[in-house]
Amino acid sequence: MGVLVGIDVGGTKIACAVGDASGRLLATVRRPTRPSGDGAADLAELAGSLRDLVAEAGCEPADVDAIGVSLPGPLDPDRGVLLDPPNLPGWHDLPVRDLLTDAFSVPVFIENDANAAALAEWHFGAARGYEHVVYLTMSTGVGGGLILGGRLHRGVLASAGEIGHMPIEWDGAPCACGRRGCFEAYVGGAAWAQRLRVVTPATSRAAALAGGVAGVTARHLVAAAREGDAFALEELHRWNDYVARGITSLAFVLAPQVVVLGTIATAAGEALSLAPIRARVAERIWPFLAERLQILPAALGDSLPHHAAIGVALEGLRAG
Amino acid sequence: MGVLVGIDVGGTKIACAVGDASGRLLATVRRPTRPSGDGAADLAELAGSLRDLVAEAGCEPADVDAIGVSLPGPLDPDRGVLLDPPNLPGWHDLPVRDLLTDAFSVPVFIENDANAAALAEWHFGAARGYEHVVYLTMSTGVGGGLILGGRLHRGVLASAGEIGHMPIEWDGAPCACGRRGCFEAYVGGAAWAQRLRVVTPATSRAAALAGGVAGVTARHLVAAAREGDAFALEELHRWNDYVARGITSLAFVLAPQVVVLGTIATAAGEALSLAPIRARVAERIWPFLAERLQILPAALGDSLPHHAAIGVALEGLRAG
Repeated sequence: MGVLVGIDVGGTKIACAVGDASGRLLATVRRPTRPSGDGAADLAELAGSLRDLVAEAGCEPADVDAIGVSLPGPLDPDRGVLLDPPNLPGWHDLPVRDLLTDAFSVPVFIENDANAAALAEWHFGAARGYEHVVYLTMSTGVGGGLILGGRLHRGVLASAGEIGHMPIEWDGAPCACGRRGCFEAYVGGAAWAQRLRVVTPATSRAAALAGGVAGVTARHLVAAAREGDAFALEELHRWNDYVARGITSLAFVLAPQVVVLGTIATAAGEALSLAPIRARVAERIWPFLAERLQILPAALGDSLPHHAAIGVALEGLRAG
Repeated sequence: MGVLVGIDVGGTKIACAVGDASGRLLATVRRPTRPSGDGAADLAELAGSLRDLVAEAGCEPADVDAIGVSLPGPLDPDRGVLLDPPNLPGWHDLPVRDLLTDAFSVPVFIENDANAAALAEWHFGAARGYEHVVYLTMSTGVGGGLILGGRLHRGVLASAGEIGHMPIEWDGAPCACGRRGCFEAYVGGAAWAQRLRVVTPATSRAAALAGGVAGVTARHLVAAAREGDAFALEELHRWNDYVARGITSLAFVLAPQVVVLGTIATAAGEALSLAPIRARVAERIWPFLAERLQILPAALGDSLPHHAAIGVALEGLRAG
């Protein structure tokens, strides 16, 4: 087997990598996402820089077995077309797969970013070896990816795993999506920061760390909680509790072996977040499910975009 | 291809059928479930009556390609063992597959009843031809089965699809399972009947139909709603609303093409239940998901136990 090429197109950065099926990264590069307004031209330029990256990895173009592309949804993985990305002018209805196939003459696979991250943690990270996996991003927003029966479950228009918009309190807190009571409205980083700007006491440690209440985010809150600040611990407890609600629903619906939590839960760590979440979920689901459910921190950290895109290439080849 | 034999072991009745892969039933029989306390002896006796049923269908034992068994969970479909059925004394840890394989020398497959019903509606009923299907029982309790990517998703210990215990209001109404706020505590027939005994006015049509408030169940409520009774319509509206909440969560998590609703929603019918549920779900999920989501009544009715067990046999051979 040769090498795999991965392209992760994010809102602010494009991360490219050359790696192998074991997750080893041979060469990587990150650059700003600067859509020119002409998606096909942007991709042609990207293809050029990929050739340089393959050379930098010490490989020939003929060594490349597949290209994986992680993109913001919605997209159509069967046709390989990006449909309607909110932050990429000129990339609407872009036939990413066909354009890159023309440039490289290898199989090209595309996947939305949450599914790609789930593939990364499954092939290379915390969920390696499991058959039924739920991955939750827990970043600014909340996304998810589902590995069920050893396969990525995509659902209609590859939009399964939109766990951030599962209602957690019907008619509850307003969500950025325009609906109410979404999981993301309680546990997403942006929603939490919005709440923290209102509820954080001016004299609190989190406010001090942020240089004022107006700047408090999940990061300051977690840092203050690590220092033992009472307000921060209480807010983190509330956050853990809502995360546990979401996981409880997912456990009953999917009976997964492992739930992998990224970003905030991983930053807060074992004692402050993961252990309390596990305990709360175990109180609410069947004991035989709780005994068999791992709730684990994401393992990939900064390499996630690279491994996500490589994971898409690997999964594409594997699933045939 | 020969014929398939199905055995559906319910709490009160055992339904046996001989059928084929198209869902045609050649011979059926139902009898009371009367566990003797010795599960192996009960199965041996059942095996004898199956031989008679095969003959009644005009077939030889050699025509039987597989046996499917639908059972109350929890069970282990990989080992073919029934684990801990609450209402079948003597059937604990019963190696159903091995006992029936010894008796018939054909492949035997076992599945929990909700998964078996999902297979039935998928292979022979309302969800035929779809790839991503959620089936919801909506009977005394609420069970579910998931067909994802053209396969039954079982999860850990085949316990995926326990949608009845997904929390719909955290710390909400008490559920028969001992927890609070479960979907079943709002939309299960038993929970609803319990509520109806408290909230139904003595002078209402539902009370009249039931011969008194103490006897009101979902059946009387639906009948009264069909007659246009205001109280019944309001209660049914509330029920529809909670059903829509559950389906909303499932739509975001799984992005199914079809949700099949059994029993109560099917009895209440299109105008009183299915159309309002569809409208409520469409308000809450992404428009592109709503456009692609069918919410359909179950199609199999009284033949469900037979088709469920035959479906288990068919799926076992198919997934082989």
